[in-house]
Amino acid sequence: MTYCVGLKIDRGLVFMSDTRTNAGMDSISTFRKMHVWEEPGERVIVLMSAGNLATTQAVVSLLDERSKAVVDRHQALLETASMYQTACMVGDIVKEVIAKSIPVGETADAYFNASFILGGQIRGSEPRLFMIYPEGNFIESTDDTPFFQIGETKYGKPIIIRAYDRTMSFAETVKLLVVSFDSTLKSNLSVGLPIDLLFYEKDTFKVGIRKRFAQDDAYYRTISEGWSNALKAAFQNLPDFSE
Amino acid sequence: MTYCVGLKIDRGLVFMSDTRTNAGMDSISTFRKMHVWEEPGERVIVLMSAGNLATTQAVVSLLDERSKAVVDRHQALLETASMYQTACMVGDIVKEVIAKSIPVGETADAYFNASFILGGQIRGSEPRLFMIYPEGNFIESTDDTPFFQIGETKYGKPIIIRAYDRTMSFAETVKLLVVSFDSTLKSNLSVGLPIDLLFYEKDTFKVGIRKRFAQDDAYYRTISEGWSNALKAAFQNLPDFSE
Repeated sequence: MTYCVGLKIDRGLVFMSDTRTNAGMDSISTFRKMHVWEEPGERVIVLMSAGNLATTQAVVSLLDERSKAVVDRHQALLETASMYQTACMVGDIVKEVIAKSIPVGETADAYFNASFILGGQIRGSEPRLFMIYPEGNFIESTDDTPFFQIGETKYGKPIIIRAYDRTMSFAETVKLLVVSFDSTLKSNLSVGLPIDLLFYEKDTFKVGIRKRFAQDDAYYRTISEGWSNALKAAFQNLPDFSE
Repeated sequence: MTYCVGLKIDRGLVFMSDTRTNAGMDSISTFRKMHVWEEPGERVIVLMSAGNLATTQAVVSLLDERSKAVVDRHQALLETASMYQTACMVGDIVKEVIAKSIPVGETADAYFNASFILGGQIRGSEPRLFMIYPEGNFIESTDDTPFFQIGETKYGKPIIIRAYDRTMSFAETVKLLVVSFDSTLKSNLSVGLPIDLLFYEKDTFKVGIRKRFAQDDAYYRTISEGWSNALKAAFQNLPDFSE
């Protein structure tokens, strides 16, 4: 499985993804699930993926080829006129890759499926954040739903629901995501360290902060231990049940 | 969906279950998912269910009939010699009901499935807690894994992992379960109030405390609001990320 979150705040977009890929319990590998295309001063596009690794790699490879190809330049990822068109392009490629993966004569099933979070900004418009489904269609974040999760989403959702605020700073948002990821890692073996972080600051048109948190990262450990202790203390301070 | 937790502490067994049943988004009903058989001084048996409502009701009906029937008395739920034999009996019935539900000529699928948590104590042995699968087989709790969840289990798991301790009092355990249920209810529409609570105190051989928490329950609201506030405060107190 996988866990990725893309979150919109007033100051920009924050992305976090784990790196664990597993095909069965005894075939565990580390793969980056966060992919970035950048044309400084013009656009930054971030794509995170969950699902069948062959599918997600094929999608990224096709996007890469298109962004580098001389022919078909009008389809290239670095040439799309808007984030909406970028999402359409990614959606089309996802649909195409999944359709090609299904054995001839068989009907589609969930095996080759993949979901994506796409975010970024292209000069001339606002930062935008999308979630793209295996069917190739997609939804966009709004003020009501300012974040998307893909993969193993449930363990880490309650804290985001409770603590998110669009006026948060980048530093607070990272804290929130680290707590959400740590809750997920503690509960589910298929999500694993290291985790990748990217911050895109609105209207900068270049990648902001990028960082990888490994097992021994001091900040990660501070939050993980601090949150465990804080939860226990908060729990102790609530009144016990009495009839 | 559903959310049920059965938890073993040194002082006994604690059970909690929600009551929401849905067949689609617009067909929501309230059904008790906690069933109790008691022979004061001799045995207390508690069964909680998640999954297809027709299946779980059929299982409970069959158990009821067997516990009341004059013939076949050796199979009756109130006559089993041990909790292990009780689990075997429930498992057999689950398997039988699911097998009968599958249309003739079709292979089994997940549609009629149901899972159960079974716990209790029969005079002469310790309190025991089991989780029974749709296949009819089951596992028993141990000191390493002292609780079982069925249904929508993920949202409420992190807090149980962090705060459970076998020496907890009943009052603290209820607090823990209310926090776990509240996190689930806040994240998932298919789990809903009221929630049922049962405490079986070790070696009493009678049902201890039984209570139903509704929307307006003062303790439930105290914990729900208190936990939200405590989480936010705990989160604020952790250090923000700095590069």
